[in-house]
Amino acid sequence: MNRDIFVKLLQQRQFKAVRSILDVMNEVDIALLLSELEDKELALAFRLIPKDKAAEVFANMDSSMQTYLVEIFTEKELKELLDDLYMDDTVDMLEELPANLVGRILDAVSASDRVKINELLNYPDDSAGSIMTTEYVSLRKDMTVAQSMAHIKRTGIHKETIYTCYVTEQRKLIGTVSAKELMTEDDDMRIEELMEKEIISVHTHTDQEEVARLFRKYDLIAIPVLDEEDLMVGIVTFDDAMDVMVEEATEDITKMAAINPSEKTYFETSVLTHAKNRIPWLLILMFTSIITGTIITRYEDAFAAIPLLVSFIPMLMDTGGNCGSQSSTLIIRGIALSQIRFRDIFRVIFKEFRVSLIVGAVLAVSNGIRIMIQYQDFNLALVIALSLIGTVVISKMVGCILPLLASKVHLDPAIMASPLITTLVDIFSILIYFNVATHLFNL
Amino acid sequence: MNRDIFVKLLQQRQFKAVRSILDVMNEVDIALLLSELEDKELALAFRLIPKDKAAEVFANMDSSMQTYLVEIFTEKELKELLDDLYMDDTVDMLEELPANLVGRILDAVSASDRVKINELLNYPDDSAGSIMTTEYVSLRKDMTVAQSMAHIKRTGIHKETIYTCYVTEQRKLIGTVSAKELMTEDDDMRIEELMEKEIISVHTHTDQEEVARLFRKYDLIAIPVLDEEDLMVGIVTFDDAMDVMVEEATEDITKMAAINPSEKTYFETSVLTHAKNRIPWLLILMFTSIITGTIITRYEDAFAAIPLLVSFIPMLMDTGGNCGSQSSTLIIRGIALSQIRFRDIFRVIFKEFRVSLIVGAVLAVSNGIRIMIQYQDFNLALVIALSLIGTVVISKMVGCILPLLASKVHLDPAIMASPLITTLVDIFSILIYFNVATHLFNL
Repeated sequence: MNRDIFVKLLQQRQFKAVRSILDVMNEVDIALLLSELEDKELALAFRLIPKDKAAEVFANMDSSMQTYLVEIFTEKELKELLDDLYMDDTVDMLEELPANLVGRILDAVSASDRVKINELLNYPDDSAGSIMTTEYVSLRKDMTVAQSMAHIKRTGIHKETIYTCYVTEQRKLIGTVSAKELMTEDDDMRIEELMEKEIISVHTHTDQEEVARLFRKYDLIAIPVLDEEDLMVGIVTFDDAMDVMVEEATEDITKMAAINPSEKTYFETSVLTHAKNRIPWLLILMFTSIITGTIITRYEDAFAAIPLLVSFIPMLMDTGGNCGSQSSTLIIRGIALSQIRFRDIFRVIFKEFRVSLIVGAVLAVSNGIRIMIQYQDFNLALVIALSLIGTVVISKMVGCILPLLASKVHLDPAIMASPLITTLVDIFSILIYFNVATHLFNL
Repeated sequence: MNRDIFVKLLQQRQFKAVRSILDVMNEVDIALLLSELEDKELALAFRLIPKDKAAEVFANMDSSMQTYLVEIFTEKELKELLDDLYMDDTVDMLEELPANLVGRILDAVSASDRVKINELLNYPDDSAGSIMTTEYVSLRKDMTVAQSMAHIKRTGIHKETIYTCYVTEQRKLIGTVSAKELMTEDDDMRIEELMEKEIISVHTHTDQEEVARLFRKYDLIAIPVLDEEDLMVGIVTFDDAMDVMVEEATEDITKMAAINPSEKTYFETSVLTHAKNRIPWLLILMFTSIITGTIITRYEDAFAAIPLLVSFIPMLMDTGGNCGSQSSTLIIRGIALSQIRFRDIFRVIFKEFRVSLIVGAVLAVSNGIRIMIQYQDFNLALVIALSLIGTVVISKMVGCILPLLASKVHLDPAIMASPLITTLVDIFSILIYFNVATHLFNL
């Protein structure tokens, strides 16, 4: 839908046409279209959205649009909206809303919902509790398939998903039944005979990354969430798990570039926050690389004698850094996907050692040939070739060992990525280089 | 389940106990357990898996286990397995199987399945066609809800998902209906009144990354796949989309570390392949960094006069590289998540410019103070401070502009990540440094 045409229709008060357009559009696309409107047009357009779509559109808006709408809504409009919003979307909104509007919303919901919302708001960030919804279908084991279907027909419309149903006994989860089974099994089959008793579940405090991992491992549509007493309190649905997967990958990628991760997008983050997220690691790395500089000063005599030696420093440092970050990146990702564990450390070291010998040899030979052609100096070619092999081997070792050690001591392996590895590997490459050079040139 | 106990039970031929264990275990966990067995035990254990779970367990096995089982299966066993396997899992298996076994499988399936399988095998890697399944529920618009439910009861059990049903007319897709609607609406409602006519779909050649993006944007359970004539040929389900999301994030992370991506895990990849994937970029980067070295030799007189100047090279190069990769990483990820587009380039540049001024100032002041304390040399402190600010600003500019330019010319922005940025930024940092130094020290 073209924004300009839509705005023109709104301004000309062609509400019937606007309503028809909104009627055929998808909720996500409506939210996107509305995000391009001015505040006053937004309010007008939102009120023209068909009733059955309004809550879903609202849930897909960003928090500044939600805040504006909550501010201008009448009590009645707010109540209607909150009735149709899923519990997890309400909580997501409340987490971003200014305090005075939070109060307004808590006043508008029923007392029992208020208790639930307050509980959900109290779960730690990034926990299963913070992303779950409390609306799910629960069945009893003595129901038949037909009774269950009738129960879902009565209550299901308000549940975020009805595709996995939960069999409970005094809030204790004793089994799960999929809607597929309900739809394909005989009407008089009892739930007890049908239900899956081996249940994959999480607790309210389980980390969301672990929740997403279980979704992917078991191809789940929803996962039940239990409290400390193992009573069922909610479910996390697959759409939230997808968001977590992408969020966690972004967090890892950001950390691997020596940036403190932020939950906001690039443009949502202010200049000052961007600077704050980037400065700490830059300072740490800057002062670490002074060590390398100090080592270089110890070899002043060497490059005073052969000034050409200085010109190979960038090439050696860069190659070491790149080799190290190749290894650390592969290991960090492997750990994140549970494909590599600390107990594999010797297999990893042996593999990286063999890889680094091949890589080192290829780089050494190609650079050696280049130097022979350019300077016709066999000794120089030998110094560079030997330094390259040493640098490649050491940097791949450092690059693969540090992330594994970090995982062992429960640090996030992602901080052991290129920037830190590069800085550490610099020290080794300079030491190897000047030691080889002083020996072979008898400096 | 403990592997040792399981093996002991198998060896003592306690098949009843083994069967009971397999009966309560999840299919994914059975596949994991079986992966730890010897070949002979694997064959035995697989035959003890309850019939209704066997295909799902098989689909979760790695290709070496699948190959072994297909080799030893009788014709009858193979036919039974293939009947229960979803089409996309069969195709996944065939892609990894040796040619002689592929023939055996194609002989065992029905003629119509053979045609479908051959079509699926021909779609390009990473396309929607290559990850879709051809088994979906299709309804007619003149059916009632009750008729649709009866149709699903008859046919649904063999479909990978029944939670989105597709309304077709001569294979043309005219609407979708969710199982939730079928389960909650009146029995005599007609599909035509119920169906969603705005359909989100992809084509067989759509890139799988785009498919995953649509799943996440619209919270889909399945997406219909159309052929070139816009006729419906299959669906992609959310579990495959989740795998794609993680796969694509891994591919990006790998490319950003200057490695050619591989679809296999770290341990599945041979030493030689690891080396092959890493050497090309290392060579390119190594020879690029020779430029930096050549520039340094032009300033031989400068560091012959003040040898201390050399010791600041690593610090400046590392800081420039880190600043550049921070910016490029954020932009690359933003582009991948469609949060940043090429048309935002001036907003990005302006933002990064302001960030780099703050970051540069903080780094310059802290390093200036350090130098004043250590060397009591104001001129030196000033040279380093000014060089730092220049380096930070230039590297953040290079870091944010290159990925955006890459996206404009349809290159993968991920290759404009730290390694390449670091190498390019080196050139600028060395130029800035020696220019500032020669001027301020009158060299």
